[in-house]
Amino acid sequence: MLIIDCHGHYTTAPAAHQKFREQQLAWLEDPALPTPRPAQISDDAIRESIETNQLRLQQARGADLTLFSPRASAMGHHQGNEAVSSAWARACNDLIKRVVDLYPENFVGVCQLPQSPGVPVAHSVGELERCVRELGFVGCNLNPDPSGGHWNSPPLIDRHWYPFYEKMVELDVPAMVHVSASCNANFHATGAHYINADTTAFMQFIEGDLFRDFPTLRFIIPHGGGAVPYHWGRYRGLADMLKRPPLATHLMRNVYFDTCVYHQPGIDLLARVIDLDNILFGSEMLGAVRGVDPQTGQYFDDTKRYIDALPLVAADRRRIYELNARRVYPRLDALLRARGL
Amino acid sequence: MLIIDCHGHYTTAPAAHQKFREQQLAWLEDPALPTPRPAQISDDAIRESIETNQLRLQQARGADLTLFSPRASAMGHHQGNEAVSSAWARACNDLIKRVVDLYPENFVGVCQLPQSPGVPVAHSVGELERCVRELGFVGCNLNPDPSGGHWNSPPLIDRHWYPFYEKMVELDVPAMVHVSASCNANFHATGAHYINADTTAFMQFIEGDLFRDFPTLRFIIPHGGGAVPYHWGRYRGLADMLKRPPLATHLMRNVYFDTCVYHQPGIDLLARVIDLDNILFGSEMLGAVRGVDPQTGQYFDDTKRYIDALPLVAADRRRIYELNARRVYPRLDALLRARGL
Repeated sequence: MLIIDCHGHYTTAPAAHQKFREQQLAWLEDPALPTPRPAQISDDAIRESIETNQLRLQQARGADLTLFSPRASAMGHHQGNEAVSSAWARACNDLIKRVVDLYPENFVGVCQLPQSPGVPVAHSVGELERCVRELGFVGCNLNPDPSGGHWNSPPLIDRHWYPFYEKMVELDVPAMVHVSASCNANFHATGAHYINADTTAFMQFIEGDLFRDFPTLRFIIPHGGGAVPYHWGRYRGLADMLKRPPLATHLMRNVYFDTCVYHQPGIDLLARVIDLDNILFGSEMLGAVRGVDPQTGQYFDDTKRYIDALPLVAADRRRIYELNARRVYPRLDALLRARGL
Repeated sequence: MLIIDCHGHYTTAPAAHQKFREQQLAWLEDPALPTPRPAQISDDAIRESIETNQLRLQQARGADLTLFSPRASAMGHHQGNEAVSSAWARACNDLIKRVVDLYPENFVGVCQLPQSPGVPVAHSVGELERCVRELGFVGCNLNPDPSGGHWNSPPLIDRHWYPFYEKMVELDVPAMVHVSASCNANFHATGAHYINADTTAFMQFIEGDLFRDFPTLRFIIPHGGGAVPYHWGRYRGLADMLKRPPLATHLMRNVYFDTCVYHQPGIDLLARVIDLDNILFGSEMLGAVRGVDPQTGQYFDDTKRYIDALPLVAADRRRIYELNARRVYPRLDALLRARGL
């Protein structure tokens, strides 16, 4: 059995990369400054940032492979404009590609998109295509709220998003629904904005008929699906009140939850309520929550421990750890098969 | 043991009441229209609306008493202006008072506030005081987002809210944190906006030091605390990362969750994770979700069944059903004691 972590971020990129971002934002304020260019980063700097962090923890915790994307909170789609977002996304994705090239057995790329408030998401199609076709990435992170907490884009079931979905279907890649930082003081990024976005996206999917239009479109809703599994009765009841089909057929052939839920009772609920075929192992490492749980003496985000503690037969555990990810990310499966895995 | 439902709404008010609201909104568009006045509603109309709905279900399901407030989704703080919100809140609260006078053993009043976007919440102090001192209400519903989904008010830990909190403390009444309808297409009201607001409020309380400033201030976060119990590990970990005290002392002496979680696994998680002293029985009846769960053959919002199915000793069950509510709502306790209960 392979253990595939579907949710990892390069939160530890070398400082020069973040400096490029700061130069970008400074340049926006003062266009007389020189046009910033992506940082020159050595392989050694990348190795150090990975080997002391994500790779070390991946190995210490017993995972085999991480679907690796740029730091979500730093996507910052609400900052700057389309050109700035585009250059930043490209630099972030290129850096992921370098990590993947250095550690091809441990990391597979998932891309950031050059979204920008008020800009059609269709403009992100090019970067998705580049990342998938040229860089070999297997998925993307799609931000349902590029405004960073003002929620002024159309819902995910709106036709606004369809050109992007068409490309996802054509490339056969799923999207993780993932917001970035919050610039709204009401929403703490990882404590409210992330979880709210997960809950919001799921309810939007209930309201619409997106998967009638795109039967093969697939989304991963991270952070254990936000509030959804805990309120599964509410969502089943709301689907009924809204005259939608049962959730199992209306959206659960297309929507998946990861396991970024940082305590045993939450994971127990997830596995009790949600069909195991819809659960993908993930850790969000590193990480929204980096500390040690004083109740267990273990890291909060060592989610593998919670899965291992579930009373599952081996075949079921393998669905969560490996088989669901290979089904939801067919390009990952192809890549693994090419390696004889 | 008394069974106290801390979360009931007058969602079935006679049509004339809603017509007054429509006249209000029409008058806003065309001030040449006559100034609308609250509807004349007969006792019989109120009796019918209650006896066929909330009272019938309260009795059928075996509860004794409901903390009863105006329909939350109809508070509509985002519509109109301060004067309109004020007249509407007053009419809604007066109607609750009439229900309470007709069925004093079955309903106790909780008030709507005349909030309005951009208007200091201090302006709601008068209506709170009227409802508590003159009408005998025991709590209020406080809307953290009077904009209806644009979230442009300061967070609940901001000093903006302090004058209102001072009055709550003086009157010794708690607030349920409860948004109204959503005018943001991203947020389905009962499926996303409500749950997001619950999660958001809790994270705001973690970020601040509100209960150091107001040690006796109390909030009920409805809908089982939004996403919070499911992500309890995340919140414990975030409090630690933010250098806050442990949740138990930082806010769980002041924050309570109701049981409006519409399936057994959700209630099981709630009772497993959250101290039983912080859980108040509630049904949200009637009702965000009005249908029958095909998996159980019972109504989704018959939350008493889920509590009854918890493996609790009688003393613990009584905390959830009665004692916590009497502690969190001292004016309810006083009222019951005066009746020898």
